[in-house]
Amino acid sequence: MLDQIQIVMVNTTHAGNIGAAARAMKNMGLSQLVLVDPIAKIDRDALALASGANDILENLRLAATLEEAVADCHLVVGTSARSRHFPWPLLTARQCGVKVREALPAGNKVAIIFGREASGLSNEELHICNAHVHIPCNSEFSSLNVAQAVQVLCYEMRQAIVVEADSQDESKTEQWGVSWDHPLASHEEMDHFFNHLESTLVDLNFLDPKTPKHLMSRLRRLYQRAAPDQSEISIMRGILTATNKATQTATQQQGEKHGIT
Amino acid sequence: MLDQIQIVMVNTTHAGNIGAAARAMKNMGLSQLVLVDPIAKIDRDALALASGANDILENLRLAATLEEAVADCHLVVGTSARSRHFPWPLLTARQCGVKVREALPAGNKVAIIFGREASGLSNEELHICNAHVHIPCNSEFSSLNVAQAVQVLCYEMRQAIVVEADSQDESKTEQWGVSWDHPLASHEEMDHFFNHLESTLVDLNFLDPKTPKHLMSRLRRLYQRAAPDQSEISIMRGILTATNKATQTATQQQGEKHGIT
Repeated sequence: MLDQIQIVMVNTTHAGNIGAAARAMKNMGLSQLVLVDPIAKIDRDALALASGANDILENLRLAATLEEAVADCHLVVGTSARSRHFPWPLLTARQCGVKVREALPAGNKVAIIFGREASGLSNEELHICNAHVHIPCNSEFSSLNVAQAVQVLCYEMRQAIVVEADSQDESKTEQWGVSWDHPLASHEEMDHFFNHLESTLVDLNFLDPKTPKHLMSRLRRLYQRAAPDQSEISIMRGILTATNKATQTATQQQGEKHGIT
Repeated sequence: MLDQIQIVMVNTTHAGNIGAAARAMKNMGLSQLVLVDPIAKIDRDALALASGANDILENLRLAATLEEAVADCHLVVGTSARSRHFPWPLLTARQCGVKVREALPAGNKVAIIFGREASGLSNEELHICNAHVHIPCNSEFSSLNVAQAVQVLCYEMRQAIVVEADSQDESKTEQWGVSWDHPLASHEEMDHFFNHLESTLVDLNFLDPKTPKHLMSRLRRLYQRAAPDQSEISIMRGILTATNKATQTATQQQGEKHGIT
């Protein structure tokens, strides 16, 4: 479906920006690049910054005019600074991803248009668009590099079209976002651990059962927040057992020393 | 609040990437850049690509090591490809924005770490992080340019912190969804804790320095996942000190018993 989206760059001046845009597109799984009357040529700079996205540069389409570039598209979105004298439907980058996702299943073709490095898109060019898109940013330093803008919009489209779609049809066995190496400790295993921890702290004279305060509550909160897996709990139990041996040795020998056996 | 976030670039090779990262940061309202032992110098390429974000380059901080760079940070997130042999909590770029938003109101400092152009971050560097972050992308062409990755993550943090906050108009001082009672431990405080933990485990004969395996990595992962606050770390340090006394008593008395004083 991402192949239904074309990235259209108008009168681009720097070859490096075309290469970097191609790389950003390919990173996000897009493939269709259209250059409208480019000033720059595909040179070594473009290839260096494409960094392996050469297929996109080889298959790019050249168009003499913006009209020609978007002629077969159903949803045309132009990138624009936030405020325009003459208001036009304006999407955020995130909303643009959703809008494009809604358009694709019916087989529609989409164009996202990026303007000149120095001056963006003209009002005339913006007015051929169904909507404008704006990347929320620092209003005092609001001009993104064109390849960076391509990156953010391609990222948001992939998020909306591939990532969110994936996560809705989840049968995840994931934890912390990665497949984990051990199952989580059960509530019962955690309970045994906390009992062991508590008795060890009493042996260490660190916890006074007469004035326990919030000590165990704080420790429960800490460990439960981390949601330990079984191997982690088994390590913690091992440390407690080693500590028990040390306190037993200390107490026994203190006993022997004082003749109390 | 965006000033509490620092972008940390490790061993960056290309000056242009540093400049482009500075521009991307400023576009999104971030200002704190830290370079860890950079290969590139701030030259004309860097300034050209910064395109007016010179203040960020002028005020950047140089650090000799990654440890030094993140010493005073409370939430440390490393950029990483999706799958690692040894799993670690993994956020998507979007989740990272939310995580950082939750950490800022309590005054916590945040570091987002970006690795080398060719090889990213080492496992050792990744293991000092509370969590890793991954930008969802085309699995067959998954290496983003480092400045593009800075752009996407700064964009997601601005989205979460400024744009969504604006739209909810919240004045939250929350962490973990509630107002918390203590500030988080800094990276440096965590580091002291881990050193204390390690030496204690050696004293307990639980950790053999000759065959450490993954023990300390597993323990780091566990505690860093929980992101302990200062009172929790002070409790943990207290338990370790009590354990040290027990092992010293045991060893001393064993010494005395065998006439070795």
